[in-house]
Amino acid sequence: MKKFNDLKSKNKLRFVALGGNGQVTKNMFVYEYGADIIIVDCGMGFPSEIMYGVDMVIPDISYLNDKRDRIRGIFITHGHEDHIGALPYLIDKLAAPIYATKLTIGLMKVRLKEHNKLNFTKFHQVEPRKQYQVGAFKVEPIQLSHSIPDSVAYAISTPAGTTIHTGDYKFDRTPMDGKTTDEARLGELGNQGVLALMSDCLRSEKPGRTLSESAIQENFEKIMKNANGRVLITTFSSNVSRMQQAINASVKFGRRVCIVGRSMDQNSQTATELGYLSIPKDTLVKVEKIDKVPDKNLTIIVAGSQGQPGSALARIANADHQWIYIKPGDEIIFSADPIPGNQDAIYEMIDNLSRLEANVYYSDITSDFHVSGHAAQEELKLMLSLTKPKFVVPISAMHRQMRHYSVLAQETGVPKQNVFIIEEGGVIEFDQNGGRIVKEIETSNVFVDGLGVGDVGSIVLRDRKVLAEEGIVVVIITIDKARNKLQGDPDIVSRGFVYMKESESLIKESQGVVRNSIKSKGKIKNWLAVREKIASDLSRFLFKKTARRPMVLPVIIGV
Amino acid sequence: MKKFNDLKSKNKLRFVALGGNGQVTKNMFVYEYGADIIIVDCGMGFPSEIMYGVDMVIPDISYLNDKRDRIRGIFITHGHEDHIGALPYLIDKLAAPIYATKLTIGLMKVRLKEHNKLNFTKFHQVEPRKQYQVGAFKVEPIQLSHSIPDSVAYAISTPAGTTIHTGDYKFDRTPMDGKTTDEARLGELGNQGVLALMSDCLRSEKPGRTLSESAIQENFEKIMKNANGRVLITTFSSNVSRMQQAINASVKFGRRVCIVGRSMDQNSQTATELGYLSIPKDTLVKVEKIDKVPDKNLTIIVAGSQGQPGSALARIANADHQWIYIKPGDEIIFSADPIPGNQDAIYEMIDNLSRLEANVYYSDITSDFHVSGHAAQEELKLMLSLTKPKFVVPISAMHRQMRHYSVLAQETGVPKQNVFIIEEGGVIEFDQNGGRIVKEIETSNVFVDGLGVGDVGSIVLRDRKVLAEEGIVVVIITIDKARNKLQGDPDIVSRGFVYMKESESLIKESQGVVRNSIKSKGKIKNWLAVREKIASDLSRFLFKKTARRPMVLPVIIGV
Repeated sequence: MKKFNDLKSKNKLRFVALGGNGQVTKNMFVYEYGADIIIVDCGMGFPSEIMYGVDMVIPDISYLNDKRDRIRGIFITHGHEDHIGALPYLIDKLAAPIYATKLTIGLMKVRLKEHNKLNFTKFHQVEPRKQYQVGAFKVEPIQLSHSIPDSVAYAISTPAGTTIHTGDYKFDRTPMDGKTTDEARLGELGNQGVLALMSDCLRSEKPGRTLSESAIQENFEKIMKNANGRVLITTFSSNVSRMQQAINASVKFGRRVCIVGRSMDQNSQTATELGYLSIPKDTLVKVEKIDKVPDKNLTIIVAGSQGQPGSALARIANADHQWIYIKPGDEIIFSADPIPGNQDAIYEMIDNLSRLEANVYYSDITSDFHVSGHAAQEELKLMLSLTKPKFVVPISAMHRQMRHYSVLAQETGVPKQNVFIIEEGGVIEFDQNGGRIVKEIETSNVFVDGLGVGDVGSIVLRDRKVLAEEGIVVVIITIDKARNKLQGDPDIVSRGFVYMKESESLIKESQGVVRNSIKSKGKIKNWLAVREKIASDLSRFLFKKTARRPMVLPVIIGV
Repeated sequence: MKKFNDLKSKNKLRFVALGGNGQVTKNMFVYEYGADIIIVDCGMGFPSEIMYGVDMVIPDISYLNDKRDRIRGIFITHGHEDHIGALPYLIDKLAAPIYATKLTIGLMKVRLKEHNKLNFTKFHQVEPRKQYQVGAFKVEPIQLSHSIPDSVAYAISTPAGTTIHTGDYKFDRTPMDGKTTDEARLGELGNQGVLALMSDCLRSEKPGRTLSESAIQENFEKIMKNANGRVLITTFSSNVSRMQQAINASVKFGRRVCIVGRSMDQNSQTATELGYLSIPKDTLVKVEKIDKVPDKNLTIIVAGSQGQPGSALARIANADHQWIYIKPGDEIIFSADPIPGNQDAIYEMIDNLSRLEANVYYSDITSDFHVSGHAAQEELKLMLSLTKPKFVVPISAMHRQMRHYSVLAQETGVPKQNVFIIEEGGVIEFDQNGGRIVKEIETSNVFVDGLGVGDVGSIVLRDRKVLAEEGIVVVIITIDKARNKLQGDPDIVSRGFVYMKESESLIKESQGVVRNSIKSKGKIKNWLAVREKIASDLSRFLFKKTARRPMVLPVIIGV
């Protein structure tokens, strides 16, 4: 990575997007003032289709390599994986205290404990409307509504001015936990003067307002009231509010509740312990015992709304779950929208559940059971008019959404030149002369694959792509080192290319091609050159025969 | 494949789905009566995400292997790839005449010519409201509206009764070519008595009616009227009606039209030659010449609406097209909905176009520029009430949509037991005693990969999956055949697993594991057993070290 100059002026605030922008997930942002640095969020990203075999993508923190001792704190906006999920992989390197609200801390502790990383940090629980001095930064959490309780924005003040970093939000006036977005405080800060608003803009394409979370519970109740059988509800395992609604509706209609799936179970336990989920006594029933509960008195809240292979719902749909098998007439509610990339898996589950004669409710046929956690256009404009920022930076969205947000911001009166659209690696600096986008820093994708973090790079991925689409042909050439010539026939083994048992003649011809490649070289001095010749001759031959380009891997063994 | 009994009774009609059902695409259906067989449609399917490297899926026609001399004709409903695309791969085996309308024949001829397969069949051009006696079948095309002109249903009559096979349709009362669905004829047939309706049901989840194609042109006009710069419109290259609308709107506002992309160009030429696309003289401009046309007088119709890599639009979005580069303010209209599975690629294009400061219109922000070619619930019910079928078979959709259609059909009065939901391989028989689903035939996916048709099977795909996600480790063990023992060190080469240059110690340790595996076997008699031992020991070791499970391929070379 190119080295980026340290801040020269003491009065300069630098903002760096290490993720989030241009990708929605993998949120991580750096604020620098003088010698001090704070970080906001540290989330995971999902691998794209072409990142074969990669489990997770995490932010590239190379930019911080020579600045680690200056990191004063990590502020987390809320407990979703795309804001906390990279902590287990990066906390030992960041080695800074974490500031967050109660539930968010609870959820982070579970993740860090799993990775044996609890000791690498200290937690400071923060409260909205209080201020925390961390190095040069005075940081104040502001209560927000989102699809998980205890979400906050941060007002971050330095002598350069106050920036408001929203995290994810909407203006839900009737959220499940009663904690609405603190419009009064946002307005106060606006009146005092806001230098810059870094705003979630994921739904900037959507006109109007996002519906309130409370719309959902009534719709759950309608189904439960009329169903003679079981009701299964699937949602994101972090969606504690949705769980609460499913539980409330169930209790109202005399249904007991079974929570199924490891992450769902874990999150509901943490939320219950910390007082964010309220489950009346004798409501829960263990999955082994559900057969003892009459169907019309049972709700099952089940993980796997995104079709994750091996998830509880995926196994149920495949009639492969140890305890739960679908009965005709079971009502199954998808209380979550498909994340792009997951559609195929989700629809496969829906088709399988439909084959088992369940009644399935999903986003294509009804919008009754899911609302987004993100602000639509009117709410985004409300945030802008409350905070009256001089500069605006859309965050945590794809380029098209950041661009739509820019248009919105201009409509509310922000001049076009005061809207800064940056992507990963983008750097903005603010000082007494205003703000500007400065040169980008280089970042790369850091992949988590199994136990490896960062050891799968672009070369390995490029190979996986070829292997995936075309397979591999290994050619083993045994040479007599003393006489410097081929010994015996070349051995050819392939995987993922053609079914070898049915391709004997192709293999035989390939051996001929290899022998010719070696012969054509005459008296051999350089076996490396022979290897290249074999690879290119055989590739050409195989493409001519099959129109495929398998990876050709010649191995020369000297004996 | 299990052999399926021949029809025993002369008075039995058998219907077999070789594709379409449970997958939307890959449409192919068999009708059998006595000794005679006709086929309806012969389409291609798209590979799913896990069919690594597969270009195309085609129907498995094993069922027809011992019945080929009984195939009297192939009837094609319309010219979309999922109804004609498998012909180049199967026509030599089917070796039967093709019956279709004029435009459909034109489009098929282009495909067959490309594959040098024109001589394997004869074409019979059919007209709606005429009847064609083909073996025991009297077949009558019925005019339908869809998103390509010249679409028809077929009324197929045998002594067992009349079935209506709809192909894809909607009831568009103002289609571009003025050819509406022939409600009168459908009603007449209904009055005469319809044994079974095989109906498209793709949009059975959608209430109401699908909008008319004519709604689109006005919206094109609005954009063109207000745009000071160029307008780019992308759609499916088979969507001749949409091209016509783009051309009409352009002509109205003094814009010349450039058609870009190979398939788009080919289809528009075929459609123009056959009279299905009308382009006023001096309207077309070649792509090399577009710079000579003022921006506000230019429309570009461009292929690549699904984000296909290498397509014209994908190259334009990557600023990599030879002739077309985006200018700020270009208006780009996606006049096609994303097909599931293509979303990632499409959004990547939209983001890139947005980065180039074009104004992009796509399905998330407006529904002004695309309507479906398929009937929604009210139209599906209209088809049911016109034809009044005794039995109903939903076709060409996923299970969930077929199930929704079943509910709809029941609402119009069809008894539940008269709705037959079958998937690929499903067989239905009709005779004087009614209709019933009989045992399924076995089918498998037939993959086209490069020049190979059917040579990539489940084993190759399983290998590709492992290679894609985990990579491969090749272990080469050289043995001294005379002394029956290891000679030298085992060689280890990996691809797509870890970056080898940075994993020297892992490779060294792996060599140790392999040596131990061999040693542990003591005096070696059976090298095959050694190979298995090496594979399992090394797999276990690598999983412990990396939590990955690469394919381990030991190769033993005797010298």
